[in-house]
Amino acid sequence: MKRILILNGPNLNLLGRREPGVYGSDSYEAICSRIAAEAEKQGMEVEFVQSNSEGALIDALHAAMDTKEGVVLNAGAYTHYSYAIRDAIAAIKIPVVEVHLSNIHAREEFRSTSVLATVCRGQISGFGPLSYLLALQALAAE
Amino acid sequence: MKRILILNGPNLNLLGRREPGVYGSDSYEAICSRIAAEAEKQGMEVEFVQSNSEGALIDALHAAMDTKEGVVLNAGAYTHYSYAIRDAIAAIKIPVVEVHLSNIHAREEFRSTSVLATVCRGQISGFGPLSYLLALQALAAE
Amino acid sequence: MKRILILNGPNLNLLGRREPGVYGSDSYEAICSRIAAEAEKQGMEVEFVQSNSEGALIDALHAAMDTKEGVVLNAGAYTHYSYAIRDAIAAIKIPVVEVHLSNIHAREEFRSTSVLATVCRGQISGFGPLSYLLALQALAAE
Amino acid sequence: MKRILILNGPNLNLLGRREPGVYGSDSYEAICSRIAAEAEKQGMEVEFVQSNSEGALIDALHAAMDTKEGVVLNAGAYTHYSYAIRDAIAAIKIPVVEVHLSNIHAREEFRSTSVLATVCRGQISGFGPLSYLLALQALAAE
Amino acid sequence: MKRILILNGPNLNLLGRREPGVYGSDSYEAICSRIAAEAEKQGMEVEFVQSNSEGALIDALHAAMDTKEGVVLNAGAYTHYSYAIRDAIAAIKIPVVEVHLSNIHAREEFRSTSVLATVCRGQISGFGPLSYLLALQALAAE
Amino acid sequence: MKRILILNGPNLNLLGRREPGVYGSDSYEAICSRIAAEAEKQGMEVEFVQSNSEGALIDALHAAMDTKEGVVLNAGAYTHYSYAIRDAIAAIKIPVVEVHLSNIHAREEFRSTSVLATVCRGQISGFGPLSYLLALQALAAE
Amino acid sequence: MKRILILNGPNLNLLGRREPGVYGSDSYEAICSRIAAEAEKQGMEVEFVQSNSEGALIDALHAAMDTKEGVVLNAGAYTHYSYAIRDAIAAIKIPVVEVHLSNIHAREEFRSTSVLATVCRGQISGFGPLSYLLALQALAAE
Amino acid sequence: MKRILILNGPNLNLLGRREPGVYGSDSYEAICSRIAAEAEKQGMEVEFVQSNSEGALIDALHAAMDTKEGVVLNAGAYTHYSYAIRDAIAAIKIPVVEVHLSNIHAREEFRSTSVLATVCRGQISGFGPLSYLLALQALAAE
Amino acid sequence: MKRILILNGPNLNLLGRREPGVYGSDSYEAICSRIAAEAEKQGMEVEFVQSNSEGALIDALHAAMDTKEGVVLNAGAYTHYSYAIRDAIAAIKIPVVEVHLSNIHAREEFRSTSVLATVCRGQISGFGPLSYLLALQALAAE
Amino acid sequence: MKRILILNGPNLNLLGRREPGVYGSDSYEAICSRIAAEAEKQGMEVEFVQSNSEGALIDALHAAMDTKEGVVLNAGAYTHYSYAIRDAIAAIKIPVVEVHLSNIHAREEFRSTSVLATVCRGQISGFGPLSYLLALQALAAE
Amino acid sequence: MKRILILNGPNLNLLGRREPGVYGSDSYEAICSRIAAEAEKQGMEVEFVQSNSEGALIDALHAAMDTKEGVVLNAGAYTHYSYAIRDAIAAIKIPVVEVHLSNIHAREEFRSTSVLATVCRGQISGFGPLSYLLALQALAAE
Amino acid sequence: MKRILILNGPNLNLLGRREPGVYGSDSYEAICSRIAAEAEKQGMEVEFVQSNSEGALIDALHAAMDTKEGVVLNAGAYTHYSYAIRDAIAAIKIPVVEVHLSNIHAREEFRSTSVLATVCRGQISGFGPLSYLLALQALAAE
Repeated sequence: MKRILILNGPNLNLLGRREPGVYGSDSYEAICSRIAAEAEKQGMEVEFVQSNSEGALIDALHAAMDTKEGVVLNAGAYTHYSYAIRDAIAAIKIPVVEVHLSNIHAREEFRSTSVLATVCRGQISGFGPLSYLLALQALAAE
Repeated sequence: MKRILILNGPNLNLLGRREPGVYGSDSYEAICSRIAAEAEKQGMEVEFVQSNSEGALIDALHAAMDTKEGVVLNAGAYTHYSYAIRDAIAAIKIPVVEVHLSNIHAREEFRSTSVLATVCRGQISGFGPLSYLLALQALAAE
Repeated sequence: MKRILILNGPNLNLLGRREPGVYGSDSYEAICSRIAAEAEKQGMEVEFVQSNSEGALIDALHAAMDTKEGVVLNAGAYTHYSYAIRDAIAAIKIPVVEVHLSNIHAREEFRSTSVLATVCRGQISGFGPLSYLLALQALAAE
Repeated sequence: MKRILILNGPNLNLLGRREPGVYGSDSYEAICSRIAAEAEKQGMEVEFVQSNSEGALIDALHAAMDTKEGVVLNAGAYTHYSYAIRDAIAAIKIPVVEVHLSNIHAREEFRSTSVLATVCRGQISGFGPLSYLLALQALAAE
Repeated sequence: MKRILILNGPNLNLLGRREPGVYGSDSYEAICSRIAAEAEKQGMEVEFVQSNSEGALIDALHAAMDTKEGVVLNAGAYTHYSYAIRDAIAAIKIPVVEVHLSNIHAREEFRSTSVLATVCRGQISGFGPLSYLLALQALAAE
Repeated sequence: MKRILILNGPNLNLLGRREPGVYGSDSYEAICSRIAAEAEKQGMEVEFVQSNSEGALIDALHAAMDTKEGVVLNAGAYTHYSYAIRDAIAAIKIPVVEVHLSNIHAREEFRSTSVLATVCRGQISGFGPLSYLLALQALAAE
Repeated sequence: MKRILILNGPNLNLLGRREPGVYGSDSYEAICSRIAAEAEKQGMEVEFVQSNSEGALIDALHAAMDTKEGVVLNAGAYTHYSYAIRDAIAAIKIPVVEVHLSNIHAREEFRSTSVLATVCRGQISGFGPLSYLLALQALAAE
Repeated sequence: MKRILILNGPNLNLLGRREPGVYGSDSYEAICSRIAAEAEKQGMEVEFVQSNSEGALIDALHAAMDTKEGVVLNAGAYTHYSYAIRDAIAAIKIPVVEVHLSNIHAREEFRSTSVLATVCRGQISGFGPLSYLLALQALAAE
Repeated sequence: MKRILILNGPNLNLLGRREPGVYGSDSYEAICSRIAAEAEKQGMEVEFVQSNSEGALIDALHAAMDTKEGVVLNAGAYTHYSYAIRDAIAAIKIPVVEVHLSNIHAREEFRSTSVLATVCRGQISGFGPLSYLLALQALAAE
Repeated sequence: MKRILILNGPNLNLLGRREPGVYGSDSYEAICSRIAAEAEKQGMEVEFVQSNSEGALIDALHAAMDTKEGVVLNAGAYTHYSYAIRDAIAAIKIPVVEVHLSNIHAREEFRSTSVLATVCRGQISGFGPLSYLLALQALAAE
Repeated sequence: MKRILILNGPNLNLLGRREPGVYGSDSYEAICSRIAAEAEKQGMEVEFVQSNSEGALIDALHAAMDTKEGVVLNAGAYTHYSYAIRDAIAAIKIPVVEVHLSNIHAREEFRSTSVLATVCRGQISGFGPLSYLLALQALAAE
Repeated sequence: MKRILILNGPNLNLLGRREPGVYGSDSYEAICSRIAAEAEKQGMEVEFVQSNSEGALIDALHAAMDTKEGVVLNAGAYTHYSYAIRDAIAAIKIPVVEVHLSNIHAREEFRSTSVLATVCRGQISGFGPLSYLLALQALAAE
């Protein structure tokens, strides 16, 4: 059974309360439930971690190195400048899929650059919570 | 029943023969079959168009305007400079999902910019033929 | 009697259906009629060509070389990157006036650059269909 | 009867004496007469203001706010850097048409940028004195 | 009674010890006392939080969402690159005023860019500890 | 008694009439009254100068050199390119505080650069007319 | 016997008529004859294709994949932006030599960049029709 | 007898009072006397004009067109952005020599660009008041 | 006896497991032992701190201010963007030597910029664990 | 009989020993022999000069001015920054053909710019020693 | 008696033969004579050195350190990139005046940047051989 | 016994006389002695070469190819632009360590780029003469 880490970065804990026009009105917990249900259907085991701290996200990636077979990562705004998270992804050997709720390529210019993308398996952006579910399938197919 | 256009741009007809290390060894036809099978499972009807011509791709998008409910678009290298295709996507009102076989963000720098992304619903890149199948699901969920 | 080519590029066939807030609600055909009426008043003979294909636009410019005394050109999004069309304008010796329905300088940044402008006689942008009529007068005054 | 301000910026008072190869050999006065004649034909009333001072041009735009229905503006070199004139155009509510005698897009690179264009109704450049006459028609059609 | 969070970022705990020529010789504690006194005069209740950690600053902003009516934020060097803090400011709905002890626009070039400014109510920089007191007044006037 | 020059640049005479959504609906005169009242409270004497001309603003700064103890300067759009005003501020020895009604860092990109900031004491932007009142206090504290 | 495709892009059909100062006064046909004569001398078989359409040039490159041993390519203005042609060259496995009649490095700045060069065997520019003959020799030596 | 205009731009009236470390301690009047003496020695007649207004400087250049044989121009900070002054220099046909008291190439980066230089006869910078005297000699040698 | 802090940033805890081709196969612990041995030989006392958190690294630098005579810092990827760490180095008065295991100037472009370098005593990069030992000697020589 | 200078710049003396994967395994001497043989066939007289010194290369170009009818120049890395060599080429009136063994457009980015190209007759790159032989033919055809 | 080095860089030995339209028709020797005559008039002793080699120019500057009171330097194209010459100027303590025959600010863009200017006393460009004579006077006035 | 070349570039012969605040007051000879002593301690044989000429430095690197086991290189200002030296380092197969007396990353911006770094083993900068001694140790450890 594939074990997957669902790792969420800064401000994603505010989902449902934060700019619903952009990020939707589902709460963080509701989205986690939806992901868990899909994972079960796919025969996968998911663990959820959310943190606003860059260091804690790196710690979580390191921890996944020996205990998970894949990571679904929404690094929030760290996506655009955290070379430290990038190095963590490159260091662990399991596949990481980058997801975004909104279409990051259709917003402010600074959001169109992902410094993580070059070390991720692939990127899925713009489909709201569905982005996570598609990422699970992509990991299932590895 | 949702009708979907699977629109492929320049050089995708060479799939299987072109840089298999990057694009995989499945032929264009094999990938189309796989997409068609998934579409049937999703209760969708797919039409396939491939062209190396920017103008023909625009014509196909226009034609989809009144006959399809969505488009899965792999515009190949036009992704990086065809503002004309971008305008066509913006002009038709149906949702367009941008897909790429390889992770365009992890290759030459010119490939990391998509001039189409701002007018697409979302982007899925890096999962080989699976990118198309995930895009179909995203359109199914619209 | 001056013979003029009215050459329209990608997506202009969708006029009236495409983003009416930006491009107005007159159809392509309605605008052609209005241009034809003005031309008649000016004692000019107009031919209309529209294509979504860069190559076809170049072919039309070449054809105009020996059969027309001037060109009114709305190259749509090709305006911003088609050095091939630019070379075609420079190669034929008849005057070409560049027109745009919307004020291209007041929209997305990529639209504020015209790679065609340096080889055109002049540029008229922002007056809707009237842009074409003013261009006809400019050619009449050559 | 529409009242129009014809506002000319720096160095345009030297018309006819200044680089005739670029700007033509008609004097400033001769061009004003031609414009006045066309205005009369269009049933418009024109006032001419020329100044080499950025501040005086802004004052003239402010004055037009309550006394004119439109402005034809050739801001000369201020076109390329006067954000103060830009703000004046945005502040008054009457339509302003930007004109240039020469094709500013076909000369030195600094001339290809207009900081005024985004707040003008449209732009006409490259047709010599005719640029002004076409602008009058554009304002007549408002 | 308005409740205000006074949030200070990295290295501000060293105030008085760190480059006194730039930041003044008052200690962090002394400045807090001065702010508290002013707040009392304005009939406001202030809470002080200082952290060197980007994540902890985001946590503090989230916590203020339901318990404060405004934030005075000196994000220190994070001002120049923390899009994660920017997103936190945009996510909470209370007004945030950006302050700086020194005139950030008159120092090294990297300091002249604030990625936070676009989502703050306003910016006050260059007046030493007085910057905080002026910010309190600005929040009082909301 | 401190004598202060309140110096306003281009288009600020239109306050109340110009884009009220951005600049508020108070007229220039109303704001001057509010500033004068605050100055009186602070025991300061204020003089008001407004001009649309860059040269006149420089003249006013020169005149303040021997007759004032400080300047509150809203240079309007000249903020973004007038190195001549910058040199004037550097040349006179009295403190100058830069103010803006709107948050210049949250608008068009050209507005986020102030070529004046490096030679001013500090900058206050985004608080409407209150920006001026806070600046008076900052000068009072010199 | 080596089979070679001589592939010419946009506006090259106008050779002899188009800017003879830059491109020489030989017609397209005359140059083809000269190339054919040289090819015969080298014991090579040449086929000529010219098109103004980017898509048609890609189609021709694909067709050459199984039927030719090399390509001499003058892509005209597409040289400077057609990543789609670049991908076609990379996809077919036969050697492609890039040629230009004029010295592209000594003209407008946009002409000094070739997006095709990185995937071609080599580049010969500046020798008029002789560029093609030298390219044939380079292919003969493969 | 050659008639020369000595034209000084913004803030040069403050010479002697303004940053003496950079510009020297001679007053504007003292420098004018020194220039006048040198001019007499060279058999030249000089007129002095100083203004802080861009428009007035342009007016002075225009006036020199028919009444002077040369101009020594220190445009102060306008040197770095006044394309309007540049156009005035290009429009009048008499030689203009650009001078600077300080070495503009050895100060802030914005000072190292002169938009006037391309239309001036030559440039002399860094020798204090001597820069003007050398410029007079250069004009004498025309 | 000199007390030295050996401060290691993000992902350095993975040494030996992370990209051994780039960073070598020695574990973090093995390298610490080697450094400790060298320190003993130099008569220095070393303390080791490693953290993936930017804030914790700043805290450690602050703590060293009063308890250490020098710091050997490998800030990992934070080297390239952490202005907050830079400010911490500038704030404490003890010498800091920047080290890197790999030659950061010979890898991805983003790694060739160190925002820390301007406030460090010097930089040693490219010698694997030896970089730390050389840094100890450099601190010994202070 | 045409006299030709074969001028080789820095590091070309190491041919055969230096990165054979890029530059081939023929020694400098072997390549010279091959060039001499071809020259004889073409009825040309060649002289070989190689130097690692920019100044010596310029001296050699000057010397060729009166004693040669053409130059084949491989300036090695000086190609990318030696404006001094560029000026030498422009100064002498005989034709210079720029050659490169490797395809400079397909390597590191700094190699894709030639500051010499604008003053050379043409450029041949990517064909190994054959590049020189083709250049001889190009000079023969002058 | 002041001893002055007249130091000329690459290609200046060709004066009179090289692009006379730009550099004049006087030979290098003729210009040296004219400079020597002026020097004598000023009571100065001049030595002339010309070299095409960057290293030799640096050697000459070093030699001047103890034997000359000033240098007139025309570094030719090295002006635009030789940081090594720049360092030599900064290292010797005698004043160096930078001269250019042509107006370097009015030619190709690469010529408008002088990397030497920041360490020279001043710059004189555009007056042909007179530039040297004016520089001698500037050194006389030190 | 390892043989090492200590290669010093432009202006380093002036050590002790040149900007002692930046480069220290030890003469070039004194530093050579110190290096020689350390080398003896390490059981290494050192040869010293210094030249102001780029070509001579390349010659020295070539000569080291067969006679030395390593190079300590301080290329002075050539560090920042000499791609020719870079190619020489890449061409010879022995390890080269780049050293700098001052911290090149903490000075003028042009000094923070080393075009040599990508082909050197590592870089040591900022420790004065000690930089050379540390480099010797790094080579000893190869």
